[in-house]
Amino acid sequence: MRVGVIGGGQLARMMIPPAIALGIELRVLSENEGSSAVQATTAVGDYTDVDIVLRFARDVDVITFDHEHVPQEVLAALVESGVAVRPGPAALAVAQDKLLMREELTRLGLPVPEWARVASAAELGAFLETHGGSAVVKTPRGGYDGKGVRVVRSADGADDWFARGGDLLVEELVGFRRELAQLVARRPSGELGVWPVVESVQRDGICAEVIAPAPNSSGRVADLAADIATTVAESLDVTGVLAVELFETSDERILINELAMRPHNTGHWSIDGARTSQFEQHLRAVLDLPLGATGTHREWSVMVNVLGGPIVPRYPAAMVDQPTVKFHDYGKEARPGRKVGHVTAIGNDLDEVVYQARAAAGFFE
Amino acid sequence: MRVGVIGGGQLARMMIPPAIALGIELRVLSENEGSSAVQATTAVGDYTDVDIVLRFARDVDVITFDHEHVPQEVLAALVESGVAVRPGPAALAVAQDKLLMREELTRLGLPVPEWARVASAAELGAFLETHGGSAVVKTPRGGYDGKGVRVVRSADGADDWFARGGDLLVEELVGFRRELAQLVARRPSGELGVWPVVESVQRDGICAEVIAPAPNSSGRVADLAADIATTVAESLDVTGVLAVELFETSDERILINELAMRPHNTGHWSIDGARTSQFEQHLRAVLDLPLGATGTHREWSVMVNVLGGPIVPRYPAAMVDQPTVKFHDYGKEARPGRKVGHVTAIGNDLDEVVYQARAAAGFFE
Repeated sequence: MRVGVIGGGQLARMMIPPAIALGIELRVLSENEGSSAVQATTAVGDYTDVDIVLRFARDVDVITFDHEHVPQEVLAALVESGVAVRPGPAALAVAQDKLLMREELTRLGLPVPEWARVASAAELGAFLETHGGSAVVKTPRGGYDGKGVRVVRSADGADDWFARGGDLLVEELVGFRRELAQLVARRPSGELGVWPVVESVQRDGICAEVIAPAPNSSGRVADLAADIATTVAESLDVTGVLAVELFETSDERILINELAMRPHNTGHWSIDGARTSQFEQHLRAVLDLPLGATGTHREWSVMVNVLGGPIVPRYPAAMVDQPTVKFHDYGKEARPGRKVGHVTAIGNDLDEVVYQARAAAGFFE
Repeated sequence: MRVGVIGGGQLARMMIPPAIALGIELRVLSENEGSSAVQATTAVGDYTDVDIVLRFARDVDVITFDHEHVPQEVLAALVESGVAVRPGPAALAVAQDKLLMREELTRLGLPVPEWARVASAAELGAFLETHGGSAVVKTPRGGYDGKGVRVVRSADGADDWFARGGDLLVEELVGFRRELAQLVARRPSGELGVWPVVESVQRDGICAEVIAPAPNSSGRVADLAADIATTVAESLDVTGVLAVELFETSDERILINELAMRPHNTGHWSIDGARTSQFEQHLRAVLDLPLGATGTHREWSVMVNVLGGPIVPRYPAAMVDQPTVKFHDYGKEARPGRKVGHVTAIGNDLDEVVYQARAAAGFFE
């Protein structure tokens, strides 16, 4: 069984351990030498080049992704040449374009913030007028970790983006109590695996911490989140891992914020906290193998991202301080603000688990 | 941090996932292309060739092992050239030679079966006469998985081995209730990590199943096993993982059967069942990093070896039957009787966990 991953970032890197365990041959097409997935990189090349991607795909059973940026032309060429692409191009299109995402989710009757497609400052101004004078503007493509997202309070607040051409997405500024994320995995044959809904704490638009499961989420919130993610996965025919980022609003609504069709930062806790990690499950799902159990080892798992680094030279202090914490280094050069790894603590006392994870991550700042 | 592993078998293979997680660069010197550790193999060469091993060691911070067969001359050359070798040559010598092992353990006052060094059929006959007419004969070197071990009931029972030259080890045939194994890890700076003592079920001299912890082992048996392994590790200055295979006799003694100074089959359960696996701990120990916690995720972990195979083509049936079981394939060609992988189940009901692990392994026979 051979899986080809397009993209050599930390998500591809974290697929390597379960691939080794399961005896799955993992091949990675990386943008450059020295990627995070260097242990499995079997090709270096541009993922927007149809010939390079077709050549890479020739020796694998299925193509999947570390990121959502592979152009639809390339995806179409893969499908046309008979390659299994999971998730498929139609599903991926929805994750690639935030306007299409809002259109599809609205069509499915799923709860989203109020939104509009705007083509000019005047249209943006009209939306602001009917939404209390402030809103969130997003570029439909290419945003991540807070990039391509902006709160605006005047009609000219996105003029630079309009100047670059193309419509923008504008959304109501949701008064949310907290952010949640619901991860599921789905096989082509339909089987679904559902992890507990988690709380994700963002700082400056970047995921800082994840608590699994989200505190006080059993019952209504958990059911709603699982229903939403299941509906998205089934309606859009998503295969592999789907992450649905959610807002829990002050007035107790659950709204969809973003979709990602790949393993996701809000699922990293599952490597150490769940019976089946999102990375193992993604491999099983894209190979159409039966999915693994999604139960947890302890009541709580807390993941804290490490921004900056370096990690490895500081292990002596961190490991002696936190012997139960699991450390994950992405093999990236340290740089202020850059996601270079994460740590996970698990246990049955949430306060203690949060303390351990934060204390461990604190050594690397 | 760069660790060089001599030997490309499944133990080296299973060091790769924790090395990736921790950001440790793992390099493997394998005997041949297409080893079990092919994802990390950075050199192919003969580990008995001093020049090859010295060249391999030049780019790593520490050398450790997948097996115990590296000749002492090669180890001495490494140490002389300033390479950190863990475990060190003096400790490894004791694991390499069963006669030296018995001498050292006896010198340390540790409990071992009655034994003698015998050089001839006559000496073997004399031992048999004083031990009820039967005994176990072992070749001092090169034995594994039941090879080089034989029960004899007459003085000429080891004539073929004597004919090859060299002394043999003869031991009383221990009437044992069960076999146990105690794994510990030790850093050069002295810190020790101790996993629970486990029960190991052997079939035809090969480890078939491991139950962690050993049922009914809390209290005296657990303390005794931990004390024995700690004494061995400290007295022989073992660094990295040490496995002490033990007999629990019908008259309730705990006797040392064998030693291994590397991750060991009886510790594979720890990948899925413990907070820190033996493979992660081995890397931490040989790098002199603080050790991880050795607690377990659930009350019971049961590991069942897969002999024969193949594994991967049978995943669809096995995974749908046992969604909570973790599967491990060693990337070896299927062959009757060959260890090609293992499965691990964890849970709080021992009967259920044993059932799950055996059921899963049964798909691959």
